[in-house]
This record gives sequence, structure tokens and C-alpha cells, in this order.
Amino acid sequence: MTNQIVSTRAAKVIARCRELARISDAPGETTRLFLSPKTRDAHTLLTWWMRQGGLEARTDDAGNLRAVRRSAKADAPTLVLFSHIDTVPNAGAFDGPLGVLLGLAAIEELGATPLPFHLELIAFSEEEGVRFGFPFLSSLAVTGQLSAEQLARTDSAGISVEQALRDFGLDPDRIAQSCPLTPNTFAALEVHIEQGPVLESDNASLAVVETIVGQSRLNLTFEGQANHAGTTPMPLRHDALAAAAQWIVEVERYASDHTQLVATVGRIEALPGATNVIPGTTHLTLDVRHPKDESRHAAVAHLLTKAEAAGALRGVSVRAKLLAEQKAVPMDRALTVHLHQAAERTGHDAKPMFSGAGHDAMILAPHVPTTMLFVRSPGGLSHHPGESVREEDVEAALATVLNLLVHLKPHAKH
Amino acid sequence: MTNQIVSTRAAKVIARCRELARISDAPGETTRLFLSPKTRDAHTLLTWWMRQGGLEARTDDAGNLRAVRRSAKADAPTLVLFSHIDTVPNAGAFDGPLGVLLGLAAIEELGATPLPFHLELIAFSEEEGVRFGFPFLSSLAVTGQLSAEQLARTDSAGISVEQALRDFGLDPDRIAQSCPLTPNTFAALEVHIEQGPVLESDNASLAVVETIVGQSRLNLTFEGQANHAGTTPMPLRHDALAAAAQWIVEVERYASDHTQLVATVGRIEALPGATNVIPGTTHLTLDVRHPKDESRHAAVAHLLTKAEAAGALRGVSVRAKLLAEQKAVPMDRALTVHLHQAAERTGHDAKPMFSGAGHDAMILAPHVPTTMLFVRSPGGLSHHPGESVREEDVEAALATVLNLLVHLKPHAKH
Repeated sequence: MTNQIVSTRAAKVIARCRELARISDAPGETTRLFLSPKTRDAHTLLTWWMRQGGLEARTDDAGNLRAVRRSAKADAPTLVLFSHIDTVPNAGAFDGPLGVLLGLAAIEELGATPLPFHLELIAFSEEEGVRFGFPFLSSLAVTGQLSAEQLARTDSAGISVEQALRDFGLDPDRIAQSCPLTPNTFAALEVHIEQGPVLESDNASLAVVETIVGQSRLNLTFEGQANHAGTTPMPLRHDALAAAAQWIVEVERYASDHTQLVATVGRIEALPGATNVIPGTTHLTLDVRHPKDESRHAAVAHLLTKAEAAGALRGVSVRAKLLAEQKAVPMDRALTVHLHQAAERTGHDAKPMFSGAGHDAMILAPHVPTTMLFVRSPGGLSHHPGESVREEDVEAALATVLNLLVHLKPHAKH
Repeated sequence: MTNQIVSTRAAKVIARCRELARISDAPGETTRLFLSPKTRDAHTLLTWWMRQGGLEARTDDAGNLRAVRRSAKADAPTLVLFSHIDTVPNAGAFDGPLGVLLGLAAIEELGATPLPFHLELIAFSEEEGVRFGFPFLSSLAVTGQLSAEQLARTDSAGISVEQALRDFGLDPDRIAQSCPLTPNTFAALEVHIEQGPVLESDNASLAVVETIVGQSRLNLTFEGQANHAGTTPMPLRHDALAAAAQWIVEVERYASDHTQLVATVGRIEALPGATNVIPGTTHLTLDVRHPKDESRHAAVAHLLTKAEAAGALRGVSVRAKLLAEQKAVPMDRALTVHLHQAAERTGHDAKPMFSGAGHDAMILAPHVPTTMLFVRSPGGLSHHPGESVREEDVEAALATVLNLLVHLKPHAKH
């Protein structure tokens, strides 16, 4: 009997994610950008579901949909359940919405159970950064970090963030009043699909996130000498692609030899790009991520040295430019332990792992104790219409969140 | 006194090449495509120079400009001096024209010197293959090999070779009558810039060509799995670019370890081509050349095996497609020895080498005893406005050709 109920509530979360996914800026797929007309439809549907769960929702002036389940104690602190409802183009149904609808399901399941804290459920409206080419605008707004420069960013139609907010009926001048988290927020939890293959390869449903990795992004250019592929003997070449290739192999080898490190060359261009011409110039990108900043810095330094060496062997020079750098963000240690214990109590071994992708949790963590629960991604698939979740994993996550909520004591140092 | 004369005649060849280079389809550069209006101007200037040298020129029905210096003996055999006057876009002044104008200078220098053979000077009008995307149309015409399929090829404006010939005032129906080499042609010689860095690195003026290399061109595709660069641990990747990179390094290593072999990856494309996505597909080209066909075949076979191996390490599959294959073409051995001896007699050590690029000599060689004389390319530069020759090298080539002409006995087995 219990199992049947269990199955029903997880199935309902999944069904709601799929129903929400049908609300799309582009027909026949799921594409829901920040402050698009269809975002209003999504808010309407979510508001309806929240009301069915006994919650009243409001939209803050950054466009986030927010609902509160009040504790009997008016001055109780607040725990926030959050994720986002904007998507990448041609997205799946779960990256973001799962965390929102699983939070709502948890509140529904709580029923009249008294809790010593308020619960706030936030559906962030901008995490992916598609419309304005900049992610995390929502979580920046609720942590008081949204800058004038970010409000002035424009989309491909030349509309600024500020104007888009006004067009949506919001007042950007009131962001500082309507957006910030309740001052006595003591914990924040994001449930999110893993977006990777680790849980699947471990045959596990859940993981608790200890750290969101830091990231370095670089552009590199290998500069040699273009020449005739038939008339230039091997010893007289300055092949910019061969030098780059040796380096790509080293990028892979070094990352494979260092636990938790990932390093990727995602883009490459060899010029002039003719079958019978030795490449004179090769442009590449490097993306390096590690949960420890010092390990990431050591990797970048090592790989730049190896790029120079691969070039030097061939009379090829190397230029590198750091495009972006982001420090690793640890999740709140005590809260993560509580989450792990809640998973254990419900019969799940949610092993600690790190997140290789960025999340709103990364923006909230420096301001409020924050952690994340990862749900297995079948096939490691995300940012793709084939993105899915297993019902048993959603149930495991829901049971874990419920268990955390009923056990967590806001006055305890966690 | 001799040196001064010597310098003057080489300087004149160079000056004429530079004057011809000013006749261009595109103003301010040197671009002269097959049967372009400016080709007619080039023919007019060349005809004028030929007439000053005592020759009458005709245009055959493939558009080649041809002049004959007759021997006193009407039934004497013929020796052909040839190269081409069409160019690549934004070309230099010497790739092709040097051989034509050096041949003319040799005939001028001979003056009334009796020779036991006729001399034909041919300025081929199509070698580079730019206009119709197919090279050597002229030499195919003079060896009776120009096909109906080649005559039907069209340029970017949709004009066929056949129509272009008619528009130029020629009669493609008469190609078989007006184009073929004189039946008793006993030798053919092309003087050409090396288009590579070998003579310069050897500090030498000249080389005799023993073989024009064979060539294999392939397309390869490495097929792995695109995935998130942050959330996919190294051991769970199927990185199509890393596999390709390992293979590119092997292409370079194998060619470097095998004398006379060159192998080049000139084009590469990694998809989807985003900084934060592991490449799922990589397309590449391979160009392999060697003077011995069996060595080239062994290289291609080895490299395909290594591509499979680099893929297998990463769960990446490999597809390869042979696009084009061309056998090595040996130059006439006896004629090449005569040419080498002529160089020696004039004080030059023209060491034997092979040509890594294709030339009209490759098309003529199976039909008539043919050889080539290479002239040093400063900086190895060709197909570039900066292409040049040294006066001393042109003089060495002219002296060698003259020496060959006065010593060569058409009745001797060469």
C-alpha cells in the first residue's frame, strides 16, 4: 500500500514536469526563455498547482515565482527550496522544474505537519543565461548582487533586462525591496538532475553535492607556418595543428591522471583549412574544472607549459588568453551532512560528489547555508529533449527531502 | 664580360615574368584563369616576345600558345620545352611562366646554332585547375586524353570547358587535330620553381626531378559522444577530438620516421564545437605523398590502423573514405641523366630530388620521355604574391638548358 502511494506521488512530480514542458516559446519543443510571454503561462500553471497545495504565490520584481508555507511561529526562520524554470533551447523537462515541483510535492505531503520554520518555494526565472547571454540573474537578484551593468544587458532584439522586466509588468526599481531572501533564512536546498553519468555508472539514485567546481576557460592559438603539403619535407615544417594535437593528448592525459579534474578542448579551428596545405594557425579552447581551486590552477599552469613545449618542438609559438575564471563554491558542510543522513534514514546511500556544472546554489551559498541533492540522469543526458528521470529516483529524492524537513532543527548549529 | 652577359639574360627572363604577372583578371594582383579575357592579352604579349625571338606562334584548340624553332632537317624529331601561364588566385610571377620564358630565352641564346632537332615551346593555358576545379586540362589535350566528361565540366558561372573554348574563338571539335604533340617528339623538358624549401635548405640552385610523387587523399571521421564538459568524468568520455589528436601526432611521427614520406592533416572540424561540450564528432583530411607507391600504400594502411586504435582506446569509432589516389610518375631516366650532366658541365650540382607537387610533366611522362628541372624557391614560397627567384639560379637553369640542347643527340638512346 505504501509503495503504491510512493509511486503515485513521484509519478505526479514527473507528470507535472512534462506538463510544464509543453509550455514553450517554440511550438513542438521545450524552449522557455527568461520573461518570455510563455513564462507568464508557466507562472499561471505553477500558481494554480501551488494554490491546490494550499500556497499563495507572488512574483518578485526579478520575475521569480515565490510561495511560502508558514510555520505557526510567526518569527520562525525560513528554509528555502528552489530551482529554476527557464530552459535552454530545445530542452528537456527536468533541468530546473524537477527541483521546483519536487519542492511543491514535499509541501503537499507535509499536509498539516507542524514545522519549526517557514518554507519558501522559489521558482527562479533565469538560470541558464540564454536570453541575455549571462546566467544566474535570478539568484543574483535574491542575494542583492544584481548590478546596473547586468540590468543594462540586452538580448538579440536589443531589449535590456530592465526593459524586459518592465514589459513583464515588474518594477526593476523595486528589486532591492521585493527580491531578497528573508533575513532569517537559515538553509537553502536545490534538488536538480545530475546532468552527468556518474550516478548511473554507480547504479545510485541520489548524491549530495559537497562542492560546485571552479572553472577556468581559455583561448589558445598555435602559430606556425602554412605551407605546401607536398613540397615541404617533414623536418622543415612548422605545423600548428600537429603541435596543438600533441597538446590535446596531454590535456586528456593530465586530467585523466588527476582525480576529480576534467579538462576539455571543445573547439578547434585550423587555418587555412585546405587538404593540401599544412596548417599555419590553430585556435582552440580549454575548459578546466576541479573542486579545489589550487588543483585547477596547477592544471592550467601545467597545460600552458606543455602547450609551449609542444610548440617549441616544431617552431610554433603559442598565445593563451584567460577568458573566464570562477572559484569553486563549497556547499554548507553541516546542512550537507543533514541531507546525507536524511537520505540514509530513508534507505538511500546518497554519496557525496561535486557538481561539474554551475547552479543557482553556487550564487546563494556565500550568503545562506546551501546544499544540493542530485538525482540520477539516465544516459547522463541533459539540455536535450531526451532528458529523463526514473520514478524510483524521484521518489528517493522526495522521501529524502521530506525526511530532512521533519528532522531539521533550525536552532541547532548545522 | 661573360658574367655580365649572363646576368643580363637571366634578369631579362625575370623581368618578363614580372611584366606578364601584371596581366591579371583581378587588378592589383596576379590572377589569370584558363581562357579568361586577360589570357588573350597574355598570349598577345608572349606572341610579341616570340616574334622578337624569331618564332611564329599559334594557339591550338585547347588554348595553348605554341611556337616552333625548326631544324634545317625537315624530318628531324622534336624536343618540347613547356610550362604553363595560368595561375592560382593572387599568385606570384614565376609558377609556370618561368619555364615558358626561360625556354624562350634559351631559343634566343641559340641564335643560328644548328640543332639536329626541332624545338617546340608550349605555354600551357590550364595547369592549376582553378576555373573548372580540375587541373592539367592542357597537358591532357596534347596527349590525346581530354575526355568528353572534362569538356563538359562547368565553372562557377555554369560555363562549360567546351563553351569557354568556343567563346575564346577556338574549336573544341578540332582538339584531336590541332593539339597532339608532334609524333616524333623524343623529349620534353619543364623548368619550374621548386615550390618548396629543399633547395634553399641545401643552399643549391637547381635539382633534376626523378619522380613526381604519388598521392592519396582521404576523409576521416571519428565518432564518439558529445557530452557536458563539466559533468562527464574523464573515464566516462568518448572524446572524438582527443582520439583524432592522438592520431594526428601519429601521422606526423610516422611520416617523420620514413624518408621521402610526407603526410598532412590540413582540415579539421570538431562538433558540436562549443567550449563546454566534449566533441562527439571530428572530421579530418589526410594527404599522403611518396615517390614509391608501395611506401605510400603502407603508410595509409598503417595510419588507418592507428586511427582505429586511437578511437578504440576511447570508445570512438572511425570511418575513412579514400577521395583520390594518384600513382607516382617517374621521369625519363636517360633524359634526367642528360639533364644532370648538362648542369654539371655548367658548374652546377643539380642533385636528384622528387617533386611533391603535381606538374604537367606528370601527364606527359607516360607518352613522351619527359623530365623536369627545379629552380630554388626563396623562402619555399609559392602560390603567393611574394613568390620569387634568384637571378643566379635562373642563370644556372638557363645555362643548363642551353648546355643540354647543344649536347643532346636525338638518335642516341637517352
